[in-house]
Amino acid sequence: MRNWENNVRRVCPYVPGEQPKDKDIIKLNTNENPYPPAKGVMRVLKDYNADNLRLYPDPSSEELIKALADRYGVKSSQIFVGVGSDDVISMAFMTFFNSDKSVIFPDITYSFYDVWAEVYNIPYKTKPLDENFRINENDYICENGGIIFPNPNAPTGVYESLDKIEKIIKANPDVIVMIDEAYIDFGGESCIPLLKKYDNLLVIQTFSKSRSMAGARIGFAVGNERLIKYLNDVKFSVNSYTMNSLTQKIGVEAVKDESYFKDTTNRIIRTRERAKKKLLELGFIFPDSKSNFIFVSHPNKSASEIFCELKNRKIFVRYWDKPRINNYLRITIGTDKEMDTLFEALEDILSD
Amino acid sequence: MRNWENNVRRVCPYVPGEQPKDKDIIKLNTNENPYPPAKGVMRVLKDYNADNLRLYPDPSSEELIKALADRYGVKSSQIFVGVGSDDVISMAFMTFFNSDKSVIFPDITYSFYDVWAEVYNIPYKTKPLDENFRINENDYICENGGIIFPNPNAPTGVYESLDKIEKIIKANPDVIVMIDEAYIDFGGESCIPLLKKYDNLLVIQTFSKSRSMAGARIGFAVGNERLIKYLNDVKFSVNSYTMNSLTQKIGVEAVKDESYFKDTTNRIIRTRERAKKKLLELGFIFPDSKSNFIFVSHPNKSASEIFCELKNRKIFVRYWDKPRINNYLRITIGTDKEMDTLFEALEDILSD
Repeated sequence: MRNWENNVRRVCPYVPGEQPKDKDIIKLNTNENPYPPAKGVMRVLKDYNADNLRLYPDPSSEELIKALADRYGVKSSQIFVGVGSDDVISMAFMTFFNSDKSVIFPDITYSFYDVWAEVYNIPYKTKPLDENFRINENDYICENGGIIFPNPNAPTGVYESLDKIEKIIKANPDVIVMIDEAYIDFGGESCIPLLKKYDNLLVIQTFSKSRSMAGARIGFAVGNERLIKYLNDVKFSVNSYTMNSLTQKIGVEAVKDESYFKDTTNRIIRTRERAKKKLLELGFIFPDSKSNFIFVSHPNKSASEIFCELKNRKIFVRYWDKPRINNYLRITIGTDKEMDTLFEALEDILSD
Repeated sequence: MRNWENNVRRVCPYVPGEQPKDKDIIKLNTNENPYPPAKGVMRVLKDYNADNLRLYPDPSSEELIKALADRYGVKSSQIFVGVGSDDVISMAFMTFFNSDKSVIFPDITYSFYDVWAEVYNIPYKTKPLDENFRINENDYICENGGIIFPNPNAPTGVYESLDKIEKIIKANPDVIVMIDEAYIDFGGESCIPLLKKYDNLLVIQTFSKSRSMAGARIGFAVGNERLIKYLNDVKFSVNSYTMNSLTQKIGVEAVKDESYFKDTTNRIIRTRERAKKKLLELGFIFPDSKSNFIFVSHPNKSASEIFCELKNRKIFVRYWDKPRINNYLRITIGTDKEMDTLFEALEDILSD
C-alpha cells in the first residue's frame, strides 16, 4: 500500500443490475419500460444541429423545467433537475441530511440509500417493514435527521396511501422528508399536492421508468422554492453543467406528449394486472404491486434457483441475496409477449 | 427561518460564464470551440434509434473508454469518464483529498477549486503565482493534502513545462497531484506519459474545448489502475449511470476523428497567434498563451470598461472582479471572422 492511499475515501459502491450486451435476451431485471420514448424524442434527434454541441448547455435547464412546472402545476422555481433521480437524490442527501441525528428509511428499500449515507458520512438507521412489507408510520415519529422512502417502495412494489405519508411529513416539521416516486405513475397517487401544506417535503421522480428514458438520465425534484434554491446552490458547487443540451430538448418532448405517456403507462398497468393473475395461478405469492414490477416468491422452489433457470433461458430478472428478501425475485413488467414467454418458462421450471 | 434549515449544507456556488440566449452575439466568454464537432457526431444523432433510450446506458461506458484508451496509449482500466471534467474533478476531490492537511493550488486559477474544497469540507491553501503569472515549483514542495492546478493555467493561458511539473509530482509521492489539462491540446504537451513513472498523478481532460462538445458534457481522467478503481468506487456510490447512451456514442465518434481534431485545433492555434500580434499592435499586454484564450490588460483603459463596451457591441468576453486580475479580460479564440470583428471593436473602443 502506498502512503497516498491513506487519504482515499473508501466505499462499498452500489451494484447496478446487469446490463447485458446480448440483444437476444428478455430483460426484466432493471425496471425499464418496454415501449419506446415519445415520438417527439426521435424527431428532435433527427433534426438536431450538432453544431449546438460546441456551446455549453443552459446550466439552469430552463425549458425542461418550464415543461415540468406546467405539467405538475407548480412554479419553475419549485423544480430541480438532475442526471437521473440518483443524481437528484444524491444531491439532496448532501444538501439536507447534515444533522448529527440519524436519517431513517425502511430496512427493505432502494439499496442506494445506505450507500449515499456512507459516502457522505451521514448517520442512518433502518426501520423494519412489517411482515407484509408495509411501513409502520409510528416508526417514523421519533427524533431523526431526515427521512426518505420510495412510494411505491422498491423492490416490493407496495404503495402507501397519502394519508399515511402525510402523517409522517406532519410529525417531522424540523427535518426534510423525501418521497422517492420513481414508480408513482403506475397506479399510485403522487404527494406533490401536499407541497401546498408542508415546506419540509421533497418529491423526487424520474424519466427512467414511466417515460421510457432510462438511457437519457433525467430525474427531478419538486419542493418549495427555498428547498430548491438550496439544492441548486449545492449543484452549482459540484458541477454547473450537469444536463447536456440534447437531453434537455428530448426531455421537453417526453413531458409534452401526455397522451402517449398515459397510453404506455396504462398498457403496463394492464399487463401487470394480467401478470398478477397468471403468477397466482402458478402458485407465486407477492405483495400487491402498484409499480412496473412484481416482487414474487414461490413456496416450492427457491428464488435463487428460479433466477438461474430463467437466466439459462435468457430471461433476466433481479435477485438479491439479502436478509428477508433472499427468497424473492423482482420481475419487471415487459410487453405482453415478453411476459407470455416468461410465464411459459416459469411453468416449465416449476413443473420439474 | 425554519428548523430544518439548520441542517442544510450552505455553500457559495461557482458562477458559470453567461450563456446568453441571443444568437446574434459573438460569444468569446466561455472558451467554447468556434468549429462544430466531428462529422461522425452528426451522423450518430441522425441514425440513432430512440428506442435504445428506454434502456439504461452502459454504466461502465466501455466503448468510449476503449476509444480513449486507444487514442492515449493506456489501458481501459486507466481511464475514468464523467459528465464534463467538472464532474471528474469533483469526484476526484471527494475520492483523494481526504487528509487533514491542506490541499494546495495557485491563487489565480480555475475558480471552481475552492468551491469544491468548500462543499466537501476540504482544507486548502493557495500559493501565489509570480508577477508573470508563473508557478514557483518550490511553493508545492511542502507538507500538503494534495495538489491541483491546470496546465495551461486558467484564466491566464500560461503553460508550464513538463520538467517543472515532474519536479512537483516527484516531490509529493504521498499525495495525489492532479493536472487539469482542459486546454492542453492547443499547443502544450500532456503529462500523460509521466504516468509510467508516477502512481500519484491524475491527469484530467475534457471534450468541451478541443473537441467542440461543451454541450455534450464529457470529461475524463487518466491515471494508474488503482487510482481509477478508487474513483469508480466513489462514482458508483453517487450515481451509477452518469453518462447517457447517446453521449457515449457521440464521444466515440469525436475521439476517432483524429484528422478533424488536428485540423480544428491547428486552426485555433493559428488564429490565436494572429490575435497575439494584433493585440500587441493595439497596445495590450498579456502572458503568452498556449490555450484557446488570451488573458489581456491594457495600460490606457480599464478591463471593466472594455468589457462593458464590448458587451454593448454584442461581443461577450469574460471579466472577474477579483484581486490581481480585475484589470484583465479573458478572450476566447473564435473564428478569424469573429476575431476581426473583435479587433475592430477594440480599435474603436481604445480610440475614444
